Amino acid sequence: MKFRHFSRVVIPAVACCLIIAQPVFSQVAPDDPLPSWNDSATKTAIMDFVRKTTEEGGPQFVPADDRIATFDNDGTLWSEQPYYFQLAFALDRVKSLAPSHPEWKTKQPFQAVLENDMPTLMAAGERGLVELVMASHAGMTTTEFEVIVKDWITTAKHPKLQRPFTDLVFQPMLELLTFLRANGYKTYIVSGGGIEFMRPWVETVYGIPPEQVVGSSIQLKYEVRDGQPVLVRLPAIDFIDDKVGKPVGIQKFLGRRPIMAFGNSDGDFEMLEWTTAGDGPRFGLIVHHTDAAREWAYDRKSAMGRLDKALDAAPMRGWVVVGMKEDWKVIYPFETTSTK
Amino acid sequence: MKFRHFSRVVIPAVACCLIIAQPVFSQVAPDDPLPSWNDSATKTAIMDFVRKTTEEGGPQFVPADDRIATFDNDGTLWSEQPYYFQLAFALDRVKSLAPSHPEWKTKQPFQAVLENDMPTLMAAGERGLVELVMASHAGMTTTEFEVIVKDWITTAKHPKLQRPFTDLVFQPMLELLTFLRANGYKTYIVSGGGIEFMRPWVETVYGIPPEQVVGSSIQLKYEVRDGQPVLVRLPAIDFIDDKVGKPVGIQKFLGRRPIMAFGNSDGDFEMLEWTTAGDGPRFGLIVHHTDAAREWAYDRKSAMGRLDKALDAAPMRGWVVVGMKEDWKVIYPFETTSTK
Repeated sequence: MKFRHFSRVVIPAVACCLIIAQPVFSQVAPDDPLPSWNDSATKTAIMDFVRKTTEEGGPQFVPADDRIATFDNDGTLWSEQPYYFQLAFALDRVKSLAPSHPEWKTKQPFQAVLENDMPTLMAAGERGLVELVMASHAGMTTTEFEVIVKDWITTAKHPKLQRPFTDLVFQPMLELLTFLRANGYKTYIVSGGGIEFMRPWVETVYGIPPEQVVGSSIQLKYEVRDGQPVLVRLPAIDFIDDKVGKPVGIQKFLGRRPIMAFGNSDGDFEMLEWTTAGDGPRFGLIVHHTDAAREWAYDRKSAMGRLDKALDAAPMRGWVVVGMKEDWKVIYPFETTSTK
Repeated sequence: MKFRHFSRVVIPAVACCLIIAQPVFSQVAPDDPLPSWNDSATKTAIMDFVRKTTEEGGPQFVPADDRIATFDNDGTLWSEQPYYFQLAFALDRVKSLAPSHPEWKTKQPFQAVLENDMPTLMAAGERGLVELVMASHAGMTTTEFEVIVKDWITTAKHPKLQRPFTDLVFQPMLELLTFLRANGYKTYIVSGGGIEFMRPWVETVYGIPPEQVVGSSIQLKYEVRDGQPVLVRLPAIDFIDDKVGKPVGIQKFLGRRPIMAFGNSDGDFEMLEWTTAGDGPRFGLIVHHTDAAREWAYDRKSAMGRLDKALDAAPMRGWVVVGMKEDWKVIYPFETTSTK
């Protein structure tokens, strides 16, 4: 995780989309599994890959067991601006724990959180972030943490858009997940985000059950308290599921190589490399944030995220690059429902 | 893992079972999903639990997503005598690597392996065992290791019974796995054994895919060699999936608590405790090795294994204890096919 620009101006995406959503949906063929995707080469590439890998007796047929598709989460399935949504969770959690920690008023990086002093918070860097994560994500049981996350995800609002964070998932990717599953693909999240931060809500939002989530984790300790066993979340890193950690996490959890992988940053480079280097049909896709009007626009060495090495590698390796502006009719689900 | 008595006499189980298998199978009702189980209270308990948890609208109904059943492997799904079968793999592997390691001729514990000197090997204890595991399980890529395991599992023979190790799976447990899956249960292995030692063959043998295997692991490192990405197995422990590690492994991999758990030793105590302490219907079962004639008989503080604390806890906690002698008509699948 790393901090992003907090100062940028958010374009009023909602109003914009209300205008374009109506004509978009009236043009869609009723049997189109990807109605929010423009009829571009990208959509054709996805449809062709699924068709050929599921065509029994065909030369590129893949048995259902091997139809594994892995998706990064932040920036691939939902937005990640102005900062990772899990950081918003950490900030909110520090604020709600503050009454029990009077020392935080004068201790960084906590003081910066409590004073909404983003420049100081950014200056605390990765070490400061780890301190925040441990203070906000550890010390409770797994059951307690699940309740905390569920409560937050249903009540918290995006700092700019003032909508629940789960409103900010990408409608075209929801359709893609559904389409792949309808074709016998097993869909997994493989994210640098916290595994137990995602599990409580991804089944409802993405249709992905907790056992199909791979992510970063802190250590757990088994204890019996008053006769009841619990798993306590310890303030110590267990696994970082990012960059080279992604193929490692995939092997640890799945024990087989995916045939499709979807990401949006250099943190996904190795997952795409590992996935597409296997034998037989392979598919790699990068979501390129090109839509400053409806979402955000960033790549390369932007402070908002980094898509540099992977963007350069894409043409050579045959990875499909989705331009959000060019390829997606709508970004968020509320754009489709708000016109009905 | 720990060493067991190597000196015991193996009763000729095969001949014995050839005699009893014929009448057993002619008595079975055609629609009985557990034909190798005697009609005992144990079988009734299993059938009742599955019936009530799958009865839609019933008070004990469990949605399909939560029907998770976890199985220990060694001693629960297949035999584990005269020593864990993975140790047999390690010993065979050390022998096949020996030509490249002339120093092993005079270096323990390798010398003991090469000279079949079991007492010295046992005396090397856990430290010696870890040395053997690292020498035999690390240093290659995950793809290479998979080939090594597949080759071994299809060619190696049990040291006493002279059969492939996969012949020594328990027929009643195979039926139970199939029965549970037919009722919407997702079956997982949660074993102290090596996760990548099991994955190459458990799908064929148990019908359990690689992504439903939780086990002990060594660390992996992502590398690109001559343009090809590989995952290298490092000689360093990553996770021990035994005792308190079992609930931790379950949470890491599944993110939810099973409602059924099956084990055979004190190494499974915490998995059973964690599983059966949850709300709603819960089921814990211990396979008790009581059949010296057809398999092996051991429990308590035996050098062959330890089932002590869990056996004492079973009545208080409502865990079902399966006596292999009393509850199982046949032990191994070949007992049923050899009479056909």
